[in-house]
Amino acid sequence: MSDTPTYPVDARNRVKRRHDRGFYDHATVHGLLDAAALCHVSYVIDGLPYCTPTLFWREDTTLYWHGSSASRMLRNLSDGQPACLTVTHLDSLVLARCGFNHSADYRSVMAFGQARLVTDPAEKRRALVMMVDRFFPHRTGGLRASTEQEIKATAVVSMEIERASAKIRAKGVADDEEDYALPIHAERLPVHTVIGAPEPCPRRLPGVERSADLAAYREGRPLEDALREAYAAAYG
Amino acid sequence: MSDTPTYPVDARNRVKRRHDRGFYDHATVHGLLDAAALCHVSYVIDGLPYCTPTLFWREDTTLYWHGSSASRMLRNLSDGQPACLTVTHLDSLVLARCGFNHSADYRSVMAFGQARLVTDPAEKRRALVMMVDRFFPHRTGGLRASTEQEIKATAVVSMEIERASAKIRAKGVADDEEDYALPIHAERLPVHTVIGAPEPCPRRLPGVERSADLAAYREGRPLEDALREAYAAAYG
Repeated sequence: MSDTPTYPVDARNRVKRRHDRGFYDHATVHGLLDAAALCHVSYVIDGLPYCTPTLFWREDTTLYWHGSSASRMLRNLSDGQPACLTVTHLDSLVLARCGFNHSADYRSVMAFGQARLVTDPAEKRRALVMMVDRFFPHRTGGLRASTEQEIKATAVVSMEIERASAKIRAKGVADDEEDYALPIHAERLPVHTVIGAPEPCPRRLPGVERSADLAAYREGRPLEDALREAYAAAYG
Repeated sequence: MSDTPTYPVDARNRVKRRHDRGFYDHATVHGLLDAAALCHVSYVIDGLPYCTPTLFWREDTTLYWHGSSASRMLRNLSDGQPACLTVTHLDSLVLARCGFNHSADYRSVMAFGQARLVTDPAEKRRALVMMVDRFFPHRTGGLRASTEQEIKATAVVSMEIERASAKIRAKGVADDEEDYALPIHAERLPVHTVIGAPEPCPRRLPGVERSADLAAYREGRPLEDALREAYAAAYG
């Protein structure tokens, strides 16, 4: 992972607690971002913090997300506003032999930058395509075209990543050495986020089939694997 | 849900976009919080937003989370700092017949208040017990006792919920009426977060058994069901 470019590190994104868990290289950071559909975006309005869940995607070192032009978050972004976009993959809960060593395995990314409304018509139109096609490759070409009203009603936000850090814990039970001698049960409880059986729309017309482009999304598969595969198909 | 108390609503927590998806009653808000282990907390340092993932739990109308006394977030909370704690359950990705109606089913809560370090020794000691026992009922009694050093090294943060809102989308494909006549595939792709097969610590002593108190956590079960059941056992 040291062959790839890295994000600059300063006080804002340096992993201070458990710094052995910190990574700043593009490959690690981007890999964790591209394995997710959901993020949480933080921003400040009138000095107060807000944390909003949203779907997002990455293009090179730029993150995109969207929302209604009427939303609280987006009304404040037209001039560029500092934001922090965070993605977390929860991999396990960890039961240790003392309270202090109870933990969780996880892989997270915090990305910092200036969130901006995408106002250029061509950039916005392309972003609205990728908003769908990044998750479902080549899908937009087969959809009913967007109306001008729909395009107006959808705000797209972009944020060039200025700083980012990944933090990874992946070691399960890690007790103090002397505690392993205690007759206490300890375990790692894995957590998986998976795809269920796809549910075709009950009003789908007869003869309309599911596209082979959706093959990545099948029952029981980890969502992150499907998202990574779709990302590669969309941008590869 | 109208029989339960509700959180006050103002400009900060009112669900503005798709207000039909907004709920403010304690039963809905608390139910979604108690079904989660992971949250994202936003706070402001030097005017900049940070979004940090962490484990948390609820007690009445107070939220608790923890971290190292050395962490960036916690060093700034001793006087009480505005925070926003958000929980999101992602339930599906929704493929519609036009780009605009692509969506996701989700259940989320945003909770606002003043985050404060728990400094009272008795309150902190009790919180450190519930930090474990809320997830794994009655577990602390069987663990190696915490040392003074461990207690010092763990910071506990509490936040009385001043405002909160829940937002729920649970309708799958919802296309414009005229678009149902189009020969386009649409579907709801369910997303499930489930528990994998528990992995006992390889160094567990012979004869040490898994407690019946962990029965809620079994392979294939939705994590949120186990968390809700554990919550009821811990606080019920």
